[in-house]
Amino acid sequence: MSTCEIPNTAQPQVMTARSRVMRFHAGAGPAEPHTWQGVPVTAYKPPSDDHCGVNRAVLAGETGEHTAFHVRYFEVAPGGHTTLEHHVHEHVVIVLRGRGEVRLGDSIHPLDYGDAVYVAPDEVHQLRNLDASEPFGFLCMVDARRDKPNMASTSK
Amino acid sequence: MSTCEIPNTAQPQVMTARSRVMRFHAGAGPAEPHTWQGVPVTAYKPPSDDHCGVNRAVLAGETGEHTAFHVRYFEVAPGGHTTLEHHVHEHVVIVLRGRGEVRLGDSIHPLDYGDAVYVAPDEVHQLRNLDASEPFGFLCMVDARRDKPNMASTSK
Repeated sequence: MSTCEIPNTAQPQVMTARSRVMRFHAGAGPAEPHTWQGVPVTAYKPPSDDHCGVNRAVLAGETGEHTAFHVRYFEVAPGGHTTLEHHVHEHVVIVLRGRGEVRLGDSIHPLDYGDAVYVAPDEVHQLRNLDASEPFGFLCMVDARRDKPNMASTSK
Repeated sequence: MSTCEIPNTAQPQVMTARSRVMRFHAGAGPAEPHTWQGVPVTAYKPPSDDHCGVNRAVLAGETGEHTAFHVRYFEVAPGGHTTLEHHVHEHVVIVLRGRGEVRLGDSIHPLDYGDAVYVAPDEVHQLRNLDASEPFGFLCMVDARRDKPNMASTSK
């Protein structure tokens, strides 16, 4: 499987969430994502030139929870990156796998395990995998009610 | 330092948050918590009989962010536990260090690295460190606007 072929195992939503434990399984090697039992891994967005090799798993917020936030886990394949974009809603990111970099406005910052990022409103940002063999995985928390992202040009 | 003596390095809040990277530092040994650069480690609550050995670090939500949620990291010392409590607001927990267990209603579930927990509204819950030497650390996301916890009895 190339880095841009993304498994889609989406399942129907349930409308009322009960307390639960989601068991973690660490991905072994670049072809296997980190997963949580019962949590489907889906494509981030339809394939496009502006992002590449991004999977996501929604741990909470889309399966009957009433939280004002969503907890997602994104995994970017070697050579992959998220869209360069901006939006009013904020991000809180925490790295769980591999190493990468984040662009915040005009600055680029390397990221390693455990590093956390706060992305302020309207900040142009992008996450990129810097490793040739290991996926770059991170939690990303956002408001449940949020605006749609706008693609950004590199000149902003 | 005993497991119930908690360093308090709280700092004044700032009112406007800018994008930032918070560098992670892994704690080495039971006396050193996991930390993030610029994020103070504080006591969870004033010392009490109903919880023991719990530190917290607030990664986002109390320093000028406008998120509808807070991202906190709690670390429970060996032999420690959080309060047995319930409240309307939900929790999303993700384990980052050590191993422990969570009580959800009348059920107790072991937790290891990476495991995630969703705590539904009004669920009686408690987190407990099961390891004799390693702290039990976990992220805990909550709504920014939330009700106060109520202590629970074991008979509920």
